[in-house]
Amino acid sequence: MKRSQMEYVAGGGLIDRRSLLVGGIAFLAASSIKPVAASVNEGVKRIGDDFPVWSRTLGRQGTTYGQPSIHEKHLKLKLQLPSAPENSGTTGWLTPLEKLHGIITPNGLHFGSHHFGIPDIDPDKHELLIHGLVEKPLKFTMERLLRYPMISKIRFIECAGNTAFNALSPLSHDGSCQDLHGLISCSEWVGIQASLLLNETGLGKKAKWVIVEGADGGSHSRSIPLSKLLDDAIIAFYQNGERLRAEQGYPMRLLLPGWEGNTSIKYVHRLEVVDAPAYTGHDSGVYTQHLSNGQIEGFSFYMDVKSVITHPSGKQILEEQGFYEITGLAWSGYGKISKVEVSADDGKTWAPAQLHGPIIEKALTRFSIPWHWDGKSTVLLSRATDAHGRMQPGRKEWKQRYASPTFNHYNAIQSWDISSNGEVENVYV
Amino acid sequence: MKRSQMEYVAGGGLIDRRSLLVGGIAFLAASSIKPVAASVNEGVKRIGDDFPVWSRTLGRQGTTYGQPSIHEKHLKLKLQLPSAPENSGTTGWLTPLEKLHGIITPNGLHFGSHHFGIPDIDPDKHELLIHGLVEKPLKFTMERLLRYPMISKIRFIECAGNTAFNALSPLSHDGSCQDLHGLISCSEWVGIQASLLLNETGLGKKAKWVIVEGADGGSHSRSIPLSKLLDDAIIAFYQNGERLRAEQGYPMRLLLPGWEGNTSIKYVHRLEVVDAPAYTGHDSGVYTQHLSNGQIEGFSFYMDVKSVITHPSGKQILEEQGFYEITGLAWSGYGKISKVEVSADDGKTWAPAQLHGPIIEKALTRFSIPWHWDGKSTVLLSRATDAHGRMQPGRKEWKQRYASPTFNHYNAIQSWDISSNGEVENVYV
Repeated sequence: MKRSQMEYVAGGGLIDRRSLLVGGIAFLAASSIKPVAASVNEGVKRIGDDFPVWSRTLGRQGTTYGQPSIHEKHLKLKLQLPSAPENSGTTGWLTPLEKLHGIITPNGLHFGSHHFGIPDIDPDKHELLIHGLVEKPLKFTMERLLRYPMISKIRFIECAGNTAFNALSPLSHDGSCQDLHGLISCSEWVGIQASLLLNETGLGKKAKWVIVEGADGGSHSRSIPLSKLLDDAIIAFYQNGERLRAEQGYPMRLLLPGWEGNTSIKYVHRLEVVDAPAYTGHDSGVYTQHLSNGQIEGFSFYMDVKSVITHPSGKQILEEQGFYEITGLAWSGYGKISKVEVSADDGKTWAPAQLHGPIIEKALTRFSIPWHWDGKSTVLLSRATDAHGRMQPGRKEWKQRYASPTFNHYNAIQSWDISSNGEVENVYV
Repeated sequence: MKRSQMEYVAGGGLIDRRSLLVGGIAFLAASSIKPVAASVNEGVKRIGDDFPVWSRTLGRQGTTYGQPSIHEKHLKLKLQLPSAPENSGTTGWLTPLEKLHGIITPNGLHFGSHHFGIPDIDPDKHELLIHGLVEKPLKFTMERLLRYPMISKIRFIECAGNTAFNALSPLSHDGSCQDLHGLISCSEWVGIQASLLLNETGLGKKAKWVIVEGADGGSHSRSIPLSKLLDDAIIAFYQNGERLRAEQGYPMRLLLPGWEGNTSIKYVHRLEVVDAPAYTGHDSGVYTQHLSNGQIEGFSFYMDVKSVITHPSGKQILEEQGFYEITGLAWSGYGKISKVEVSADDGKTWAPAQLHGPIIEKALTRFSIPWHWDGKSTVLLSRATDAHGRMQPGRKEWKQRYASPTFNHYNAIQSWDISSNGEVENVYV
């Protein structure tokens, strides 16, 4: 490869992706990916005992519900706090973002965060009650609910504590992308617009908030502004085509697009329309933030604009210098992602990454940019901007706003240090 | 409900969906869905032994790879030919379309069609060879391939024989939507553009076709026009986020968007660039059609515009007259769906259904329309049109083109008969 054939768009080896289209054979083949030259006869040797067993024998018939390949057993959710006792009820299951691609999270690997464990609810014994400041309190059985018109939306869910719950601890400086950012996932959700059901009960004149309660053992509940429920809230029954998993709220959950995950109440069985927030256990406490000006910030629902490079990322190793694709995910609770910039020289210069469509509001957006690593140590960064002009802050900027015990709503730029031996490591700049 | 409040858009009870937004409480609640009136105190009785066990106890901790709810065991793929011997190698696993929603098919329920069973290929021993009329034959290991830039596309795959393989047989007149149409699914696929790899090898001047071969026991192979591989073909590694399932081609498959499924060669390990088609076993035989004019139609790659109502559909039962949502799926191998019309009076009148976005080319598109069933027998139909103006034919029209042994590429309008007792049944009109 003649390096001069590649058009660089920023420092540290970031390449204009159009180079991929015009570079031809000289570009990638020589740029350290190095496919092996094959002999002309190679394709003809197609029969023989040296062939692998799967090319000589009949395969399996299959099963009624498919599972991942036996060669992908390493692809697993990971407990955020593995030392917590199994009966603590509070668990965080982290999605292995760096091993996934695209924007859809497969149902088996959706992150989970539970305060009271995962119940197995019999749908025939589950009802939704809507009462309080309504014209006519109503109960809905599952059978009745499934008769209502449904909508489909691809949306992310992110735990309020994603990233900083780990990243603020010096112990996890060397975490993987899963370790640091794994409390976010993205699915196609299908369900009834909450506004349609509230239209059924009618609303009292003083109605302003709704206490939403789950049927899990601890009755996880949050006070939600009525305006959100009338805007884009969904009572969801399906996730990526099939009915919700128990981990995700079977038989139904609330989905509040773009808002902190704990407000998308799983196992939802009660909406109480009220005139003021109830300050439930989770309206206070863990889902509030300490600000550096001494204030407590509560009801801070929006998950702000954020991005993370999933490859290369923490604990991965670049085996050699040469071509790599830098790729990652960006999202904003406020709407669509409009731009992701990447730096391969520790923030000195930035280049726009390619955004892979469809670019959907309040969904993950996949980005990528080609990169030629010269084998020297450097730092990779990504910085997302959403359609409202909100841009990811730096870590220092974020820390100026919040006081030290706070770990929710951390959306600062992630820095991945590349050492000259190819090791990738989380670093705080 | 005052029926006069609903605006009908066609015969047989099809409702303008805007009625849902303006109708308020009078509309759905009274329209036979009938949620139960709740007492004002109901929400307060939140503690007690009459509460279900899951609301009084701590739930499970979870697992490293999630599975469907224990209450959804009935959600299964179904063998197309259950009587075929297990070692026949040829299997068709049908997706339960009528039990799914949205457009994404969960990985565990993606349809499968295999001629030589499902191999479990060790990715470390799998290579891709590109040879023939190329400037430089090359072999790619999995490790090398995973270094290349990737793209993500939500695309359907449909078996050439979907629907008519069953629907032409009088034996399956009473099939479910799964039985009749289950050889189609839709996923987010991620992989390398095939054009990028062909750019690596370079192409000889006479290059016009490519023989694509899988590593399965019977070396399933097809001759594919080079132009398709240079257009939108993908060597796919990921499906809905995670690596492909063995059923879907692990460790990699070709994806030819919009073309009959058997051309998206699973377990792909060889691309031989040639100047003319090879007439492989599957270029001929089962993937050709007998035309009524006596000709044989081969290399008929495009899956034409098609739709099916998934609810209400075959073998389902409408328990009572009143409100239902008619919903289904539409797709076209040529591009985007532009319109789906629904008839609730056996084709006398038609109304446009709502298309749920994102509307993506060569992907499934979800449609729906509200419907008030008056309890009388009728026939429901859907008719899709794509962005190229191609419209689904009627059954008679389709049969005029093809001679009787042919079952591939059946895309005629599906008719679901609703009897006055609420039974839904496939019917040929």
